Amino acid sequence: MTAFAITAADVHDAAAVLHGVAVRTPLLEYAPLNAAVGRRVLVKFEGAQHTGSFKFRGAYNRLARIASADRAAGVVAWSSGNHAQGVAAAAKRLGMPATIVMPSDAPTIKAANTRALGADIVFYDRATESREDIARNLCAAHGAILVPSYDDPFVMAGQGTIGLEILEQALALDARLGQLLVCCGGGGLAAGIATAVRDANAGAAIAIHAVEPLAYDDTARSLVSGRRETVPAGARSICDALMAPAPGMLTFPINHALLAGGLTVTDDQVRDAMRYAFAVMKLVIEPGGAVALAAALNGLAPAGDGDLALVISGSNVDPAAYAAILVG
Amino acid sequence: MTAFAITAADVHDAAAVLHGVAVRTPLLEYAPLNAAVGRRVLVKFEGAQHTGSFKFRGAYNRLARIASADRAAGVVAWSSGNHAQGVAAAAKRLGMPATIVMPSDAPTIKAANTRALGADIVFYDRATESREDIARNLCAAHGAILVPSYDDPFVMAGQGTIGLEILEQALALDARLGQLLVCCGGGGLAAGIATAVRDANAGAAIAIHAVEPLAYDDTARSLVSGRRETVPAGARSICDALMAPAPGMLTFPINHALLAGGLTVTDDQVRDAMRYAFAVMKLVIEPGGAVALAAALNGLAPAGDGDLALVISGSNVDPAAYAAILVG
Repeated sequence: MTAFAITAADVHDAAAVLHGVAVRTPLLEYAPLNAAVGRRVLVKFEGAQHTGSFKFRGAYNRLARIASADRAAGVVAWSSGNHAQGVAAAAKRLGMPATIVMPSDAPTIKAANTRALGADIVFYDRATESREDIARNLCAAHGAILVPSYDDPFVMAGQGTIGLEILEQALALDARLGQLLVCCGGGGLAAGIATAVRDANAGAAIAIHAVEPLAYDDTARSLVSGRRETVPAGARSICDALMAPAPGMLTFPINHALLAGGLTVTDDQVRDAMRYAFAVMKLVIEPGGAVALAAALNGLAPAGDGDLALVISGSNVDPAAYAAILVG
Repeated sequence: MTAFAITAADVHDAAAVLHGVAVRTPLLEYAPLNAAVGRRVLVKFEGAQHTGSFKFRGAYNRLARIASADRAAGVVAWSSGNHAQGVAAAAKRLGMPATIVMPSDAPTIKAANTRALGADIVFYDRATESREDIARNLCAAHGAILVPSYDDPFVMAGQGTIGLEILEQALALDARLGQLLVCCGGGGLAAGIATAVRDANAGAAIAIHAVEPLAYDDTARSLVSGRRETVPAGARSICDALMAPAPGMLTFPINHALLAGGLTVTDDQVRDAMRYAFAVMKLVIEPGGAVALAAALNGLAPAGDGDLALVISGSNVDPAAYAAILVG
């Protein structure tokens, strides 16, 4: 039997660490969305989280565990943007230096926000350089601690607090959840949420699906094959936040054990979901944050009893890119 | 002594009518907004209300009071869009026909949404026709009931339920409100909220300001002069939802008695606030819905103890218009 990297107790610990620090984001409901999907739909809006995505939760839970004596050396992370901002914001709150290794084609708003939070940025070329090597060299040079974006128990547990909140908030809304849709890059959010939700009393009845961009369907294929499948180099998607090339080493065993399966959406379905969120929900969503909504709007959630919850995971999108999608 | 059109009891009655029907919209907090304004700021997001603005509350509270025997004849309203949608949605839920008299230059999205809710639309030319005459003729011809957008006790009381929710939600967030900013067209939202908030125990300590577009500052001037001042014909603003030419007959006595004063913002400040809401808050806001946020971001809320609450009143804006503001 596989020993999982985290248990539900770790998620509850993370919730205690994040209490009064992370935003308890709203669980929203829209009558037209219910009608469009054909069932009651509850939307967890992590765009309202610090730095505009769920990533702050895991980053803060990781950094808060670093011993006082080790904090001055700071942290290093690589990220196309959301994890970068989450780590930068957590480091700022804890008074620690942070260096982020970002691809040179990361959305401008994500780089600007990361810098505004006081972090140093080191850019690299996706095609010719290794972010892992750059990050490890930075850690070695400064004695800094590397903060993975998903393959870390504290990071996974931090993201899992979203699952606890969804259960509590759904109860307060008299909902009876039967399905949960979660976006998936490396799988940290899905693993954390699944750990929390499947542990709860009602957990066994809630089917959880990971949702990915079609071109980055590694988790969907891996859940079928039972081993960590990879995405061919050079795959493209507008979902910059979800371009992990393979499921995580720590996240996949959990997701394989606890998820009901994987779903995929096209970039066009993502754009439609972003436009729907603008027109009906009045929420700004970035491409990677919209995949679960896209799956729901396209009827991809399997039939089943109960209400549907989905996570809108992030909202950091350049104004020009967003404007182009709105009028496209 | 003036007898006001509504009392706090009417607002509590409205809350009972709207319970389980209207959305209890979230009261949100953003660390960067707190830092920008220099105090704790709580944001009531009525974009998440049915039809994307607060107007559903008042419309439903009015229509629900129409006797069963009178419902088949339906209702008539005039509106540039948000009240139109609110009336249409309320009529649909109550199984009543609705006819809306709209200016021919109303935002496309507002007309389309109104029609999608099953209402009939009669367009008129702002320059040459009288919406009041058209609406009264429709009522006379069909025996329908006219639903004013602000000068109606049930409408005002319905909007006032936002004030009750703000007080309850602020308490749950351990906030101590000292200031409240509310957008103002005809003054129904401000009058309803002020009636509810000033009646509560903590009410006397909360200073409430109406916020208007600079070109439609009739309430601000009226609060100073003590009589209902008007806006010159032909005044222009991007805030299409706030272009009432004068304070209401029923709303103004309440606002004059209960408000601390009026504030005004320019169209450029409104555009900046919309861009800020996109970038930081991840919320879509229409121009008229952003005036209170614009006032806060520009430091217009008077100094004073306590936390600041503000209402984002609506989010119905055409994609092309929004895109132009984002990249402008």
